[in-house]
Amino acid sequence: MAKENFVEQIADVEKDFPQWYTDVVIKTKLVDYGPVKGTMVIRPYGYAIWENIQAELNERFKKNGYENAYFPLLIPMSFFTKEAEHVEGFAPEVAVVTHAGGEELAEPLAIRPTSETVIGNMYSKWLQSYRELPILINQWANVMRWEKTTRPFLRTSEFLWQEGHSAHASEEEAEAETAKMLAVYKEFAENCLAIPVICGRKTEKEKFAGAVATYGMEAMMKDGKSLQAGTTHFLGQNFAKAFEIKFLDKDGAQKYAYTTSFGVSTRLIGALIMAHGDQRGLVLPPVVAPVQVVIVPIAAKKGGVLEKCAEVKTELEKAGIRVKLDDTDNSPGWKFNEWEMKGVPLRIELGPRDIEEGKALVFRRDTLEKNACALGGLADTVKELLATVQRDMLEAAKVRRDGRIAYADSLDGILKGVDGGNFVKAGWCGCRECEDKVKSYAQATARVFAEGESAKKCAICGKKAERVVIFARAY
Amino acid sequence: MAKENFVEQIADVEKDFPQWYTDVVIKTKLVDYGPVKGTMVIRPYGYAIWENIQAELNERFKKNGYENAYFPLLIPMSFFTKEAEHVEGFAPEVAVVTHAGGEELAEPLAIRPTSETVIGNMYSKWLQSYRELPILINQWANVMRWEKTTRPFLRTSEFLWQEGHSAHASEEEAEAETAKMLAVYKEFAENCLAIPVICGRKTEKEKFAGAVATYGMEAMMKDGKSLQAGTTHFLGQNFAKAFEIKFLDKDGAQKYAYTTSFGVSTRLIGALIMAHGDQRGLVLPPVVAPVQVVIVPIAAKKGGVLEKCAEVKTELEKAGIRVKLDDTDNSPGWKFNEWEMKGVPLRIELGPRDIEEGKALVFRRDTLEKNACALGGLADTVKELLATVQRDMLEAAKVRRDGRIAYADSLDGILKGVDGGNFVKAGWCGCRECEDKVKSYAQATARVFAEGESAKKCAICGKKAERVVIFARAY
Repeated sequence: MAKENFVEQIADVEKDFPQWYTDVVIKTKLVDYGPVKGTMVIRPYGYAIWENIQAELNERFKKNGYENAYFPLLIPMSFFTKEAEHVEGFAPEVAVVTHAGGEELAEPLAIRPTSETVIGNMYSKWLQSYRELPILINQWANVMRWEKTTRPFLRTSEFLWQEGHSAHASEEEAEAETAKMLAVYKEFAENCLAIPVICGRKTEKEKFAGAVATYGMEAMMKDGKSLQAGTTHFLGQNFAKAFEIKFLDKDGAQKYAYTTSFGVSTRLIGALIMAHGDQRGLVLPPVVAPVQVVIVPIAAKKGGVLEKCAEVKTELEKAGIRVKLDDTDNSPGWKFNEWEMKGVPLRIELGPRDIEEGKALVFRRDTLEKNACALGGLADTVKELLATVQRDMLEAAKVRRDGRIAYADSLDGILKGVDGGNFVKAGWCGCRECEDKVKSYAQATARVFAEGESAKKCAICGKKAERVVIFARAY
Repeated sequence: MAKENFVEQIADVEKDFPQWYTDVVIKTKLVDYGPVKGTMVIRPYGYAIWENIQAELNERFKKNGYENAYFPLLIPMSFFTKEAEHVEGFAPEVAVVTHAGGEELAEPLAIRPTSETVIGNMYSKWLQSYRELPILINQWANVMRWEKTTRPFLRTSEFLWQEGHSAHASEEEAEAETAKMLAVYKEFAENCLAIPVICGRKTEKEKFAGAVATYGMEAMMKDGKSLQAGTTHFLGQNFAKAFEIKFLDKDGAQKYAYTTSFGVSTRLIGALIMAHGDQRGLVLPPVVAPVQVVIVPIAAKKGGVLEKCAEVKTELEKAGIRVKLDDTDNSPGWKFNEWEMKGVPLRIELGPRDIEEGKALVFRRDTLEKNACALGGLADTVKELLATVQRDMLEAAKVRRDGRIAYADSLDGILKGVDGGNFVKAGWCGCRECEDKVKSYAQATARVFAEGESAKKCAICGKKAERVVIFARAY
C-alpha cells in the first residue's frame, strides 16, 4: 500500500529520532546539503517557512521601534581583539578571507559570526548626542561559524538569522530592553510556532562571549532534549568601551552607551520539526505553514469536481488563507501521504457525493481527525479551524513538556532525569566545577535559571545553593 | 536662512554631479562607508527602499511561478573552472576564504560573486525527469565582487541582490523566459521606480561571463550617463553541461537542460537617486518611498494642531499610506528642508488657520507645487495625488531621456553626442575593434542593441552595418 511505503521511508520517530529528523528534512524538501561540508541549501518549502517567520518578527520588531538595516559581511580581524571575551569565544569558529581581487590582503578579514563589532564601530561613528538614543536597529543576514559537527538547520557553518542591536543612555534601560525583547521572542514562539518556551538567565559558562548577561528561551523537542531557540544579551558597556560608542549627555558629559543584542535563526525551523513532528512527518502550525490548506479532489475526473475545488480554492484565497489545490494525476491516497508528510495543517477532500450533499471532509494534521463541514461558509469554518489547530498545537506541546519536567537533588538524579528525556530542575551552588560535572556525568548542560524558584542545597556538591537551574541535554 | 544653509551642504547638481551624489546619499542617511574599503552600510532609510523593491519584485516573481530559496555563500574554487568563460570573467574579482575554524582549508572557497555554479550543482542533483521542468527559483542574497574603485550602491565589493535561476527542457522555452523576465524588470522599473528603461541585447563584449546572450535594461541618469539597471541571461547549455544538469525526456533520452539567470541589485537605489534627484536632494517615487507623506504641524503649540495632525495621520495610515508625523521641536522651515532632502513625495502642512478653514496645504516634492486640499476625504485625495506623482515622475523622466537621444554616423559624432550627455545611436559593423575604439576615443560603451532599428554603415569604420547600437558613458 502506498501509505505504508511512504511511512517506511521515514525512520522510527521513537527508536531513532536523529535519523527520523534527517529523513523528514530531506524528504519533505525543506533543505539539502550544500557542496561545501557543513553548509545547507534552504529549499523553497523551507525558505517559505523562514519568510513567514520573518514577516511575523518584522511586525513585532517594528512595533517595538526597530528598523532594519544591513552591515558588511566582512569584518577586519583586528575588530575581534578589541573585546577580550568576544575574540576568545568566536576566533576558533571564524572563516577568514586572506585573498581578494587576485591579491593577498594587507589585513585578513573575518566573515561575520555575529555583528556586534562592526555595528559597534558604526554606532560610534553615528552617535553624538543623548537625543539620538536609543538606537534600535535589526539586521537580517547570513552568518558563518565553522562547526565540526553539523546538521541541517540545527548547526551549520552558514545560517540565516536576525540580529537586533540597541544602544541606550542608561544601564536600566538597556537591561529592560533585553527583558522586553526576550518577552517578544516568547510571545512569538508560543503564538506563531506553537512552541512553549522556558525563558531565563544563562550561567556564566553558557553566556554570549562578551556579554554581561545572556537570557535564553529553551524549547523542548520530542526526544526531551532542549533547543536554544533564541537569546538576548545585555552587553553592558563592554562593546561601547571597545568601540568608543559615546554620547554627549544632558549634563554635558561624554558617556559610554549601554548596548544589547538579540537573535533568532533558521534553527527555529529545526525546532518546529522536532517540537511537533510525528511518524508521518512534519506537523506545521498554521501561522508559519507555507501551505495552510491543501484541497484534494476525489474522483477528480467526474464532472464538476475540479471546478468546485477551484471555486473553494478561490474562496479560501480571498479570505487570506494560503491554499493549494493538488490537481496532479497522483491518486488521492498518494496525495494524502505527501501533504501529511509535508505537515499541511488542514486537508479538504472533495468528491462528487460531497458536492451533492453540500459538504467537504476536513482533515486535521495535528489530531488526525476528519470531519464533514458544510460548503456554505467554508472559508469562515476553515479560518476558525486554523486558529483552533494553532491553539491546540501549543496546548499539546505544553502538556508534553510539562509532563517531562523532573526534579533532582543529586547528580544521579540529574542523570536519571535526562536519561528519561526530561528537563531537570536542580539546586546549584553556582560554581563552574559542579556545572562541568553535570556535563561529563550526564551529558547535560545548564539551560537557564528557573526564574522565581529557589533551592537550599546544590544537587551536585551538597553545599548551600540559592538558585535552581534547568539542566537538559541540548541541540 | 536655514534653507540656504541646507542647500549649501549639497554640491551643485549641475556642476559637480559625482559630489552631489555622494553628498545626497550620505546626508540623507541612505548609506555609509563600512570599515573595510569598498564596503557599505545600508542604513535604515536606504534599507527601507530596498524592502519596498523586494516586496514589489517578490509579487511579480511569484506571479511568474518563482519560489524563493537560499544557497550557500561559499563555493568551491574548482566549481568556477568548470565553465571556461565564467572563470575568466569572475576569478579576478573573487574574495577567497583560505582558513576556517583555525585551520587552513584543503580547498580554497570563493565567496559567491554570483551563484550559477552552486545552483547548477544543486539542480543537477535535484533534476531527474522532464516532469520537474521548468525549475523556477529566485534567491535574495549578498554577493561579493572585489572592485578597485567603489561608490555606495553603484559599485561596492559587497552588495545585495536577487538572482533568478531557471532550467527548461527546450531552448525556445529558456529564451522566452529571458525575454519574459526582462519585460517583468521593465514594467517594474517604469511603474515602481518611475525610471524609463531601454531594453535590448548586449554585445559579446558586454555579456555575462558564461552566457550565450545577455539582455539588459539601461536607465539614463540626470548627467546623461547610463546605468545598467538589470540583466537577464540566456545561458544555453553552458552551465548544464558544466554541471551535468540533465533530465530524462518524454522520449526516454537523457538531455541537458537549458538555463537562464537574471538579477537586479541595490544599484537600483543609486539609479533612483540619479534619475530623479535635484538640488534639494532626493525625489522618491511613491511606490518605493519609505515615507510617502510627511505631516508638518504649523504653530504646533496652538491648541488642537497636534491632535488634528495625529488624526490625519491615523486616517492616512488606515488607507494604507506610509505616513510620518514630524512632531519634533524643529522649526517648520527646518522640517521642510529635511524632508525635501529625503525625497518624501508629499508634505502636508497643517496649522490653526488651515484647520479652521477645513483644509491643508499639500506640497509635491516632484513639481514643488503647493495646493490647498479639503480635510474632508483627504485620504482619497492623497492616494490619487500619490498615483499622479508616480505617473508624472515617469513621464518627466521619459521626456528628459527622449530629449537626450542623439544619432551619430562617425566616431567624432559619437564623442560629441556623449560629451553632450546623450545616449548615442549609431550603426555598428559588429567587430570588437570598432567597439574598443569607441571606448578609447569617447569613453563610451555599447549599452544595448537598439531593437527594431537598422543601419547601413558602421559609424566607426564605415563598413557595412546592419544593427544599431546605443553607445553611452556608463556607471
